[in-house]
Formats: sequence, structure tokens, C-alpha cells
Amino acid sequence: MKNRPKLGPAPENKLSSVGSDRGRYRVVIEDVKPEINGGRFSVKRVVGERIIVEADIFADGHDAVSAVLLYRKENQSRWTETAMQPFINDRWRGAFEVTETGNYRYTLQGWVDRFKSWHKNVLKKMAAGQDLALERLAGAAIVESAARRAGGEEKKILIRFAAELRSGEPEVGGPALDDELAALMERYLERRWATTYDKELSLTVERAKARSSSWYEIFPRSCAREPGAHGTLRDCERRLPYIAEMGFDVLYLAPIHPIGRSYRKGKNNSLSVSPDDVGSPWAIGGEEGGHTAIHPQLGTLDDFRHLVAAAKTFGIEIALDIAFQCTPDHPYVREHPQWFRKRPDGSIQYAENPPKQYQDIYPLDFESEQWEELWHELKRVVLFWCEQGIRIFRADNPHTKPFVFWEWLIAEVKKKHPDSIFLAEAFTRPKVMYRLAKLGFSQSYCYFAWRNTKAELTQYFTELTQTEVSEFFRANLWPNTPDILTEYLQFGGRPAFVTRLILAATLGANYGIYGPAFELCENAPREPGSEEYLNSEKYEIKNWDFDRADSLKELIARVNRIRRENSALQSDRSLRFHPVDNSQIVCFSKSTEDLQNVIVVVVNLDPYHTQAGWVELPLEQIGLLAQQPFQMHDLLTDAHYLWQGTRNYVQLDPQSVPAQIFRLRRRLRREQDFDYFM
Amino acid sequence: MKNRPKLGPAPENKLSSVGSDRGRYRVVIEDVKPEINGGRFSVKRVVGERIIVEADIFADGHDAVSAVLLYRKENQSRWTETAMQPFINDRWRGAFEVTETGNYRYTLQGWVDRFKSWHKNVLKKMAAGQDLALERLAGAAIVESAARRAGGEEKKILIRFAAELRSGEPEVGGPALDDELAALMERYLERRWATTYDKELSLTVERAKARSSSWYEIFPRSCAREPGAHGTLRDCERRLPYIAEMGFDVLYLAPIHPIGRSYRKGKNNSLSVSPDDVGSPWAIGGEEGGHTAIHPQLGTLDDFRHLVAAAKTFGIEIALDIAFQCTPDHPYVREHPQWFRKRPDGSIQYAENPPKQYQDIYPLDFESEQWEELWHELKRVVLFWCEQGIRIFRADNPHTKPFVFWEWLIAEVKKKHPDSIFLAEAFTRPKVMYRLAKLGFSQSYCYFAWRNTKAELTQYFTELTQTEVSEFFRANLWPNTPDILTEYLQFGGRPAFVTRLILAATLGANYGIYGPAFELCENAPREPGSEEYLNSEKYEIKNWDFDRADSLKELIARVNRIRRENSALQSDRSLRFHPVDNSQIVCFSKSTEDLQNVIVVVVNLDPYHTQAGWVELPLEQIGLLAQQPFQMHDLLTDAHYLWQGTRNYVQLDPQSVPAQIFRLRRRLRREQDFDYFM
Repeated sequence: MKNRPKLGPAPENKLSSVGSDRGRYRVVIEDVKPEINGGRFSVKRVVGERIIVEADIFADGHDAVSAVLLYRKENQSRWTETAMQPFINDRWRGAFEVTETGNYRYTLQGWVDRFKSWHKNVLKKMAAGQDLALERLAGAAIVESAARRAGGEEKKILIRFAAELRSGEPEVGGPALDDELAALMERYLERRWATTYDKELSLTVERAKARSSSWYEIFPRSCAREPGAHGTLRDCERRLPYIAEMGFDVLYLAPIHPIGRSYRKGKNNSLSVSPDDVGSPWAIGGEEGGHTAIHPQLGTLDDFRHLVAAAKTFGIEIALDIAFQCTPDHPYVREHPQWFRKRPDGSIQYAENPPKQYQDIYPLDFESEQWEELWHELKRVVLFWCEQGIRIFRADNPHTKPFVFWEWLIAEVKKKHPDSIFLAEAFTRPKVMYRLAKLGFSQSYCYFAWRNTKAELTQYFTELTQTEVSEFFRANLWPNTPDILTEYLQFGGRPAFVTRLILAATLGANYGIYGPAFELCENAPREPGSEEYLNSEKYEIKNWDFDRADSLKELIARVNRIRRENSALQSDRSLRFHPVDNSQIVCFSKSTEDLQNVIVVVVNLDPYHTQAGWVELPLEQIGLLAQQPFQMHDLLTDAHYLWQGTRNYVQLDPQSVPAQIFRLRRRLRREQDFDYFM
Repeated sequence: MKNRPKLGPAPENKLSSVGSDRGRYRVVIEDVKPEINGGRFSVKRVVGERIIVEADIFADGHDAVSAVLLYRKENQSRWTETAMQPFINDRWRGAFEVTETGNYRYTLQGWVDRFKSWHKNVLKKMAAGQDLALERLAGAAIVESAARRAGGEEKKILIRFAAELRSGEPEVGGPALDDELAALMERYLERRWATTYDKELSLTVERAKARSSSWYEIFPRSCAREPGAHGTLRDCERRLPYIAEMGFDVLYLAPIHPIGRSYRKGKNNSLSVSPDDVGSPWAIGGEEGGHTAIHPQLGTLDDFRHLVAAAKTFGIEIALDIAFQCTPDHPYVREHPQWFRKRPDGSIQYAENPPKQYQDIYPLDFESEQWEELWHELKRVVLFWCEQGIRIFRADNPHTKPFVFWEWLIAEVKKKHPDSIFLAEAFTRPKVMYRLAKLGFSQSYCYFAWRNTKAELTQYFTELTQTEVSEFFRANLWPNTPDILTEYLQFGGRPAFVTRLILAATLGANYGIYGPAFELCENAPREPGSEEYLNSEKYEIKNWDFDRADSLKELIARVNRIRRENSALQSDRSLRFHPVDNSQIVCFSKSTEDLQNVIVVVVNLDPYHTQAGWVELPLEQIGLLAQQPFQMHDLLTDAHYLWQGTRNYVQLDPQSVPAQIFRLRRRLRREQDFDYFM
């Protein structure tokens, strides 16, 4: 490109409407991706990410087509545009980077490009040695029409080009092939009868934590120093250094509200209850208050704000639960009886999933005549906690409340707090989980806990990351929760915990553990075949020995450090599985777009036996040559391995470390690097 | 089901709007299939076909959901409904049959079904032996609300059921499980807060010939009895018995209009032309007239109408070409110079695809200021031929005219003549071909001519019949055309012609040949590497020897009879390919929905050598048991083979017949059928 002038601002972009000239619009735009439910829902990105948009764009006949991708912040009227490029089979691609939280819009425009069509024909005729006299005149007319829309120096350049074309210089091919002219024409030639895609698609941009976060869940009441005592928020604060050392950046508290007394459950969810039984934190509401009150034994609102501030100094954000359900003692029951369903005998309908009955819980009736008042109250609850500094919410069982409610609530909260993040705890059918993600949840619990074999992991995480699902569903991977102690953990002992931790933390840019049960490898179920913990913390206060020698806390700290230091692990989009000739070993990689950071993870899924196998890596995709050795740096053990070629050997002993997290080091020193080589 | 009452007419179906009660609408409907371009285009069916509609339908929570599929003719306001059934993973399915040509609309509705939810819970509680007193009362209230909407006998039945529930009879499970009650409740319970899918999808129903037709293309001017003479439409009429004997039902005539003299091409598309050269029929327009005139040497409009009527008596429909292009001598050039593009020297721009130039053709300029007048004139042309009794049109190069034009034209013609059929002759890029099909063409030429290997055939016809493409694109398979003499035919000799005929006629419910070049195995190209015929009929009059002993006419007749007698071959939707352990043998099947007609085709693609192999049939899918022998009746040779099990042997000699068209005969006589067996 020679002498390319600085381009001034482009003429105003207006998305034209077709109007009475519709017969002259020849370009078609279809099959735009991403586009969720025909544009009904937003695509998700975080600040700093790029979005690649593809579409089929074509016209009738042989003319050349040009196309642009247009985007804007939702609250701005002016579009920014970027050129799209064709790649194969009439498919075009464009991309832009998002820089702010909030909603963006994007759409596409394509038109028959008179100048490019002319240029294409001129080149072919030149090659065939045909007469170009009339072509020169036709070209001059097109350039002149662009000159009329340009100004200053650029106008002069265009006029000069047109004159050269008209003059019939033998060097006519010059301007026809000139990059400078092409750039000016792209800028100034009228986009006659440009087709604009008939939808403005929506893109929601959240902060980075929506995409990558490490969660730690605790019951604040179990943080007391003395066994048996009811822990307080101040006690909880004293645990922050421990949690920070392990490297977590979200601390999720089981509900902190007053707990109901009616039908309170005893230890192990027993129906027989003693006066000192503390009840489940999810049985929300007592005479001390409801969803905006704090359990008196935990402390005060001041204590809570103090905890939030203290956590911040450790780089930790507090996440709260939004569990929209009430005990019979909740103030709503007295103040808003219309928000609950009545039984034929006039009593309030308690929760049931026949034959199971939950007399201690009254579900809110979203079919109530007063649904609108109910919605506004629940919004008030969330905004109340936002005012206390909370921006991360974990919604309890969102699939038991209407979809429209969540869509409205999340949008309303984000209007005021665009940095808010919502995690959906919906362990239910796949379509329901996906719908919740589409309507606005930033992150979603997923089936990770029950995906244990190589085939299961490969199938599920390929679906989550390599299909349209990746545009709206951000999985958060939990090896355990207070409700879920999987059989793999029950039977696999410590190696199972290590394996599941490493899988969660590397397969998932978002992951979390329910601690200290996790790092202390708590694995006793209430009874055989149950996934409930024996003596579950849901129904009693625990006193954990955080300093036990066999705690996984140091391994966890190392894994979280690896996550922080390797941006490849902070996104799921690049996840690819690689073949290993052993069904007990799973291998996958993640990498940054520029391949500067490539992480390869190898995990032995068998918690009992050493397993070995040959791993097959797609060298080209990770920027390697078959003849070039490369270093695999195991970030867990700091060991360095020298690998070469597609197939390399691994061996993993579950009794030491059942996994390796390799960082690929591409550059190896060779004899050429030695000082005296030359 | 006992005592089920005759159901009266259902309460008026109205598609409700959400309005101010939107918070109470809990059901989601998404991922509806078929839905082309988000509902922008119609799905296609023919009269008598069924359409199966699928969608994800679900609500929050545990309540039971019900859903219906709604459909209507476009010009009627009242919807008909049919219940949808869930099958897997929140996916529901419903179906209806279309009975008239024209446009239909369909949409879906789903709601939380209070009665089904109640019923489900009662069953679970009964099984667990729980108290049902309150359930009975709740159920009675629901039944009473339905009774208020019923009348006559049905109202009485519902009131009696409600009373039984209230009475607390020990037999309460009775009504809860009663089919009669379920049917009445389905009919009369108010669909409270029913979600209607937000689109009305469109379905275009055409007559059966749109889906299944056998085309024969000729040049009427080559039908004269004496060599060298210019054939007439009357001559053409004399060929009807011959064409009817071969079993074709569409006779497509190369354009019958006056041919231009300016820049007329000589034999073999030569630029040097002699006074008696007849020119290409696609060079339309002379001083004798344009697109609504008939070439004087062919005859008169009366002759044409006579031909149309005569063909009808043979069960043959005449198809005309719509080739919207003009010679310099076309009346439009004089009368509407604004419909053509000007060059800078004021002359009219002739067609070119640089470096190729076509001085004999002026393309119509659809970007003209007067595009609307142009559109109306072209519509007038098509309607003119409709008035002469023509209902089938083959559009020449539709991809060189704007998409919006065709969409409008086809819709306009169908408004007046819903039985009209349009075939798109667009040999261009796949997305362009699919777009033309979507916007309304009934049938489309396809890449069949260039799909010769087993892998190519399998990949392409699976795409056409087993993906969304099958909803809008009906392929018409041509082994040859006046423009296409493939290398496979050039080199493969007679066996190649037989193979390609059988593939076209069995892979495609719509197929056609350009004859008599085809049945006489004409295979000399203009020059090596060219797909043009030597001495192409496009530029000269031919005199064919229809009675040559080596003609394929009898084989063609047999194949067309097989197509007529086996409805499995009259649709492409059921096409499935089956494994054969020989890459030169392709095997596929087609079957009717009820499996009463199952056709299995085996073709040797190698025109030189006998090939043999083991065919693998999916017995279960075609209604067979592994231990049960079955008969394979070869409809080409009338041979009967006895097969058993999944794998069976075939051997095909290209020098006799390179293919077998089996009809599966499931029932074999056995000893049990023998009179004295018992």
C-alpha cells in the first residue's frame, strides 16, 4: 500500500430502510451466528473479549459484494462499523471487541459493490488483452460519484484518479489496482440499495469475573473457635486469611437470615427436633425478620458490612444466596398471605414433591393475583443487599420460579448495578437450565458432579464449549455442594478429591467447592446410596479442624495460583479434548487466541491404580512442528519434560498426584544459542 | 377407555395475548422445527402429506404441561388444533395432514395443566398411602371450573365427577384415573395463561407433481419427419405417444419464441454463421415478437394450445421455459430501452462474464429506475402462458435475477394459479440455490450430474433429504441437459447411461432427461474436456432415429413404471443409504411411512467391471426380523431372491444391468401355509 492518505471520519452511517425501492435490493443476509432463539436473547461476553459474527451474504449474478458488521452500545444511537471478510461458501466473518459492561447491539449490512465489481472485470479483461476504453469511462464515472461525497485532500485524490481513467493513459491498470483508490472508494462510494439484516442482535457484556471465578462456600455459623458455639460473622471474618491463602476470589455464604421454628428439622433432616437444634439456613424467616434481616446469632448488619469490606482487602467478594421461599414464621406469611397458595381447608399450601412433604417451607405463589407486588418486593430484597456492597448472587432453585420473573429481576438489578453477577443453582433438565442461562444468569451450576468417565466428560464439556451453548451458558463446576456428595468422592478417597478438584478448576473457568468439607475430604454419606452428607452442616453447627495435616489446602492454593497465572484457564471457549489410548486418562487443553499461553491437562480418572498411556496432541493447532522438541512444564510438581512429535507418554499414580497441568514451553535452547556457536 | 361420550365442538380457540398478566405465563416454547430462517420462509408439502412439528415445551417447577399444535389455511381465521405429545428431553411432537393447495399457518400453544398436575400428585400420594381428603376437594374445584364451561350431557358428567370427589367415596382413585374425565377435562378446562408461540409459521402446499415428476426435455424444431426440415408444434405432437410410452409426465420444451438475428451463433456456438443457421432458442426475441410470441416456423398459438390439449390426453403436462433475456432484436429493446443498462458510449450493455462476451444477449437490468414496470411485464408473460393452459415453468438461470423478484413473481402467479409449479435452473453456489428454493421455487436442479462416486452421492443426498434442506428444497435430478454432457457419460458408454438413469429415477422423486440424446446414448463432446455436446442441438436442427435398436427407451419405460407403481419412490424424505463393503456399489432405500412399500436399490457405479459385495440392511427399520427370510423382488428383471439376516450378497455386471431395484416382499409362504399342515 503506497501513499495511503489518512482517512477522515466516514460519512454518517445510517441503517437505510428499503421503502419503495425494494426491487433493487439484491443482497441477502442470512444464518447469522451467534443469534440466540432468533435474536430473542443476548449473547454473553466479558469486557475485553472479542465477538466473531458470521453470516451467509450473497447477491444474485456475478457482481462483487461488500459487507460490514455494525455495533453500538444499547444506549447510543451511532453505529460503529467494521468490514467483514468472506471465507468460504458465501460465509462472511467480522469481529469486534467489547470494552464496557452493559448491553450492545449488533447487525450487518451488505451491498453490491459497483467499484469492486468494475475492478474485478477490469482485471479479467486486462488479462485477456481486451479493449478497456469503455471500462475506463465507466470506472471514471463511479470514482467521480464517490468524489462528490468526499472532501478536502481526499476529494482531490479521487478527482485525479477519475481524470487519469478518462485520459486513457496506457497505464490504466495502475489506478485500477491501486490500494489507495480502493481504500478511498470503500469509504466514499455510496452504498446503493444496501441490505441491512432485519434484526438488531443483542450482546450482554459483564465484568471478567462472570467468566472466571473461584468460589468457596461456607456456613458462617460453623466458623466459631470453640466447638459447639454458634459462629458469628466476626468469626467468619477471621477465616478470610485461610480462604485467601487457598486463592479463592468469591466467598459464598449459606443464607444468613433468621431461621423458622415451625416444623424445624433436626440433625440429619430428622423430623424429631430438640430445642437446641439450629435448623436449616434455607428455612428462611422467623419472628426476627425475613430476607433482609440477619440471623441474630450471626451478628448485625454492621458486622456484615464489616465482613464485606474485610474480604475486599483480601481480594475476595462475598456472594449471597437468594432463596425465595419462606417458613411459616416468615413476616410475609402474616403481611402478605395473598402471596401463598391456599389449600381447600384455608391453610397455606406447604412445599411438596409428592410423596415428599416439606411442612417447614411455604413456596411463594407466582400465580398469585398479586404477582406484581411480589416481584417488586423480591427486587427490593436483592437491591437491599446490593446496597450493602454485594454484587454476586447465587439463586437457589431458580427453576421453581417463573422464567419471566428472573428475566425481569436480573434486568432490573443490572440497570442499577451492571456489575452484578447471578449464578443459577438449577440442577434440573437441560432445556430448563439453558433457558435460565439465556434469560440472563451470568453463570450456571452444571452436571459436572455426575460426569466422571472420560466419555461423559468429553461429551458434556464439548457440548458446553463447542456449540451455541457457549454463547449463553457459562458453567460453574462444583465437585461437591452441601447437597451433593457424589459416590465417586464417597468411594475414591483422597485421590478422588484431588482428581475432581483439578478437573473442576481446569475444565471450568468458573468453579467452586463447598469447604471445609472438601479440603478435609469429608466423604461419609448419611446412608448408603444417598448423596447427602452424614451429620450434614445444613442441620447442625460443625467445628472443622482447618489445620489437619491431610488437608488439601496447599494443593488447592497451587491450583488456584496456576489458574491466576495462566489466562488460558480463565475462559472455556478454547477447550479441546485430545486422544489418549487409555480410557482412564483424560487429556484436554486450553489456550489463548494468540497461543502465547497453552495449558495441557492430563488426569487419571481411576482413583485406585496407576494408569499410563500415549497422549496425542494436535501439534499444528498449538503452534508446534513435528520435528521440533518442546518442553512440558508440569505446574503442579514443577517437573519439566521434553516431548517431541504427536504422541507422548504419561503415567499417573493416584497415590501421589493423579494429574499433570502442563504449560507448553515452545522455545528450547539449542546449540545455536550457545555463545560460541558461530 | 370406557363410556367415552361423543365430544361436542370445542370452545372457541382464541390465541390469547399476554397483556398485563404476563407474570403468570409460565410455559416456554422454543426451538420449533420446521422453521425456515426464523419463520421468514415457508415449509413445503404437497396435498395429502403430513407435517410433523417439534418444539421444546416446558414450565418452571414440577407442574404438568399440555400443548397443542394449531393450524389453519392462510385465508381462514379459525384454527384447528391437535394435541402434542412429549417424547424426550422436554421435546414435544404434533402432526397434521394438509388437504388443499395454498398456504397454511401453524403455531403452538402450551400451558400449565392444573388437572394433569393434580392427577399426577394424587397418583403419587395414593401410591404412598397418604391422606387424600384435601386433594379430593382441590380436584373437585378444578372439575367444577371445567363443568362451568361445558354444556348438556358433558356438563352433567363433570358435575357428577366433582360430586363423587367431594363425597369422599373410598373409590376416589376411580375418577382420578378415569379416561372419560381426562378427555372432558382436556376439552373444557380453561387454558389459564397459555403461552402461544410468538410466530405464525408458514407452510406452502402444492399439488403432488411438485414432489414427484418425470421430465422429458426436447427441442420441438427437431421433431420434423424429414431430415433437415424445421420441425413444428404439430410434429412435436406426433412424438407424444413415444414419450408417453416411456412413461414421462412432464414434457419440457426448449424456448418456442422467435430467435434473434443480430450476432446469431452458428453451429457449435460458432461466431461465423450462415444464412440457414437457426440460432439458439434461448436467444429470445426477433421482429416476429418476444416472450409471448411463437417462432413462426414452429407454428401458431392455436397449434400450441392443440399440443397442450393433446399432451393432456396422454397424461403429459407441457412445461415451458422462462428465460428472461433478450436479443438485440427483441421488441423490448425498442419499446423499453430503460430496461437495459447503457454503456458509457450510449450503446446497450450486452451480457458478459469476463473475459466471455455474449453480444447476442442483452440482460434485463433489474436495477433499472423502471424495475416495477419490468416486473409487471414479466408477470404478464407468465400469466399469458398460464392462460394457454401451462402450469409448469422452468426458470432459466434464476440466480442472475434478484431474489426479491422471484419471490414476488411466484407468489403473484400462485395467487391466481395455486397449481403452478416452478423449477429453478440455477447451477450455482449452494447457498444461492437454497435461497431460491426457500423463496418459492417448487423444484430445483441440483448437483446430481456431478455426483458420481458413492461418497459424493451419499453425502449430497443425505444433506438434501435428512437435514432442514428437505423442508424447502425439492431436488430435480438430471443426468444430462443440453448444456451438460458429463465425463462419466462421455467415457462410460451405455452402462454409464443406464446407471445414471436408474440413480436419477430412484434417488429423486423428481428427475428428468434431455432426450432423445439420452436414450440414444449420445456422448460425443464438442472437444475433450468440454461438457458441451458436439453439434449441439442448441445451435442446429437434429433428426433423431427414435427406433434405433440400442435405444434405452424400453428400460426407461420400465423404470418409470416402477416409479408409478411404488409410492416409496414418489418422495425423497425416507431416503437412507446402507453400507456395502465395496466402494463401487451404492445401496439405498426408500419406504412409505407405514412400511407397506419398501424399495431397495443397489447400483454398480463402475461402468467397466462386474462388482460384487455384501449389502447391510437395517432390518428393524424396514420391519423385518433377523430370523425371518424375506423376498427381494427385482423389479427390473422380475427375478426373485431369497434373503435372510442383515448381510446379503449382490453382484452386478454393467454389461447386462448395472443395478437392481428391489421391492421388499415381507411375507413368505411357509409350511404353516400348506393346506394340510395342521
